[in-house]
Amino acid sequence: MKHSAPSAKALVPFVSVETMMKLVHHIGIEPMLRGLADYIEQDFRRWELFDKTPRVASHSAKGVIELMPTSDGEVYGFKYVNGHPGNTRQGLQTVTAFGLLADVGNGYPVLLSEMTILTALRTAATSAMVARHLAPKGADTMAMIGNGAQSEFQSLAMKAICGLRSVRLWDIDPAATRKAANNLRGLGLDVHVCNSAEAAIEGAQIITTCTADKQYATILTDNMVGAGVHINAIGGDCPGKTELAPAVLLRSDIFVEYPDQTRIEGEIQQLPSDHPVTQIWEVIAGRKPGRTSTGQITLFDSVGFAIEDFSALRYLRDAIKGTDLYMELDLLADPDDPRDLFGMLQRAAP
Amino acid sequence: MKHSAPSAKALVPFVSVETMMKLVHHIGIEPMLRGLADYIEQDFRRWELFDKTPRVASHSAKGVIELMPTSDGEVYGFKYVNGHPGNTRQGLQTVTAFGLLADVGNGYPVLLSEMTILTALRTAATSAMVARHLAPKGADTMAMIGNGAQSEFQSLAMKAICGLRSVRLWDIDPAATRKAANNLRGLGLDVHVCNSAEAAIEGAQIITTCTADKQYATILTDNMVGAGVHINAIGGDCPGKTELAPAVLLRSDIFVEYPDQTRIEGEIQQLPSDHPVTQIWEVIAGRKPGRTSTGQITLFDSVGFAIEDFSALRYLRDAIKGTDLYMELDLLADPDDPRDLFGMLQRAAP
Repeated sequence: MKHSAPSAKALVPFVSVETMMKLVHHIGIEPMLRGLADYIEQDFRRWELFDKTPRVASHSAKGVIELMPTSDGEVYGFKYVNGHPGNTRQGLQTVTAFGLLADVGNGYPVLLSEMTILTALRTAATSAMVARHLAPKGADTMAMIGNGAQSEFQSLAMKAICGLRSVRLWDIDPAATRKAANNLRGLGLDVHVCNSAEAAIEGAQIITTCTADKQYATILTDNMVGAGVHINAIGGDCPGKTELAPAVLLRSDIFVEYPDQTRIEGEIQQLPSDHPVTQIWEVIAGRKPGRTSTGQITLFDSVGFAIEDFSALRYLRDAIKGTDLYMELDLLADPDDPRDLFGMLQRAAP
Repeated sequence: MKHSAPSAKALVPFVSVETMMKLVHHIGIEPMLRGLADYIEQDFRRWELFDKTPRVASHSAKGVIELMPTSDGEVYGFKYVNGHPGNTRQGLQTVTAFGLLADVGNGYPVLLSEMTILTALRTAATSAMVARHLAPKGADTMAMIGNGAQSEFQSLAMKAICGLRSVRLWDIDPAATRKAANNLRGLGLDVHVCNSAEAAIEGAQIITTCTADKQYATILTDNMVGAGVHINAIGGDCPGKTELAPAVLLRSDIFVEYPDQTRIEGEIQQLPSDHPVTQIWEVIAGRKPGRTSTGQITLFDSVGFAIEDFSALRYLRDAIKGTDLYMELDLLADPDDPRDLFGMLQRAAP
């Protein structure tokens, strides 16, 4: 090759699945969850600054492929994410994801990363960061209803960020609960396997629902929810997929990420479109009250928002600095003379 | 590592800049341009089948970052592309790009590729494929006005696809013309360096304009354009950036990719929004006439459309099969049990 080596800007740091797992163990999962929660909280404080484009969805009979872009004016980020409920039947993931950060000033990508694991971490970090603002003081017990891929991440994030000591597991599939209980063993939480949702809720100040049915389901009925709890509802995240009885919503003060999106995708799709909700960023920025009484039921109706992915990628960009936990991808053409792309190609002839 | 190796579906073939250059030389640039033109033509024939979402743009004072998605119902594709006119002052490319194909059925990516070089190739292949339909019979001479990064690709594509024998170069910057002439030497075209746009146009049946000024410019005035030519106008591709005098447009039969986009970004932004234009796919599919007389001026007002990128990625996916001209990226997490992402992460602990 006669042409000169590509400049640093033409090489894009890439974090693969393998490398992401190494990074998690290098940092430690709990410190990483705390770090992610801090970055997400910082970005929620400056929420108004962000370009909040709706996600761009391509629907088919089998599922959806979405691009979720956002920008803070300095850095641009997007996530590619699919949702294909039938994938598990072929041994594939329902959801896979990757993401990218770029420099708004010159449009050059600065980071490409797997985001299946990173999304699991950021979702849990977001839940716990919000619970730190809304859960009753001294909350140390969580009911974890739905013991799928997100359940262990939720449990550990609540431990790392909110001081959770005890988690009460329940799932309609006992194998899922056994898997979660096995995975959580030895990680510093008291783990209780429960025989019903009602049993899981006993003594819990935080109730997390994360079930996967793509249908209107009622995981929490009205009589199950006592005064003073914080509900972290993360399973309802697309049209037609909800987990809570409307009566539970009506007794709760509801906090959301981005109302335009949550009214379509969240639990509140069951309520009139003018039902009052509080944007969680306003609580975090000190503009609106969060929990105001001990008897109040707070509900975080979480669907996942592009800014959380942006924060996670920003955390990752900083976390890999000075490590060898990434590789550089030759993703961008970089001729010495920008007008001479053809010459660069010709000079690469064998 | 105790976990099993990722399945084939979790690994995404990746074509870097270096590998793309190897592939171009492996196939040969002219056969590759012909191959790309064939794939683009195939997709234009089935134009109605495509999901034609508008591009999603994030604008800043310095430039724009765009995501261009499309789908034919079986395969999904998108391109990331930026446009930062000030980049050349820092020795960076104005435009960089990469793209991705995914399987609509399960949402898993199947190809990631650099697209700076690939976009240059597909743009030239599109121009030449369209000229094959619209240029006068026996056209063998092209005026190439604007001798930047796209000019050599345009010239070679017209040779490979339309039988061009002679190219007449002009640019306001003589250094750009010298570069293009040097690059085109020995590639089988008669290359003429001209001292003015008027001189370049002498004897040319095809006039290609590809200048880079982000402003309303008049590269072709009315008196310069004689009867019977085909104009391939590719430089005007965003609001406020045009190259042709309105009088030239009014004398021409205008062919476009996607009217909704071209009326905003193309030469026809200078005309009333109801000025008649023909979608080029209708000509290719045999539904509308193309050139109907020898005296007619045909104008392809090209801005670049997502389907052309899709076709190029589809070509690339097929072209790398059975070669070693790609690497596999570990982009997607693939736990043995889809519900056990956390367990996969734990088992990867050192």
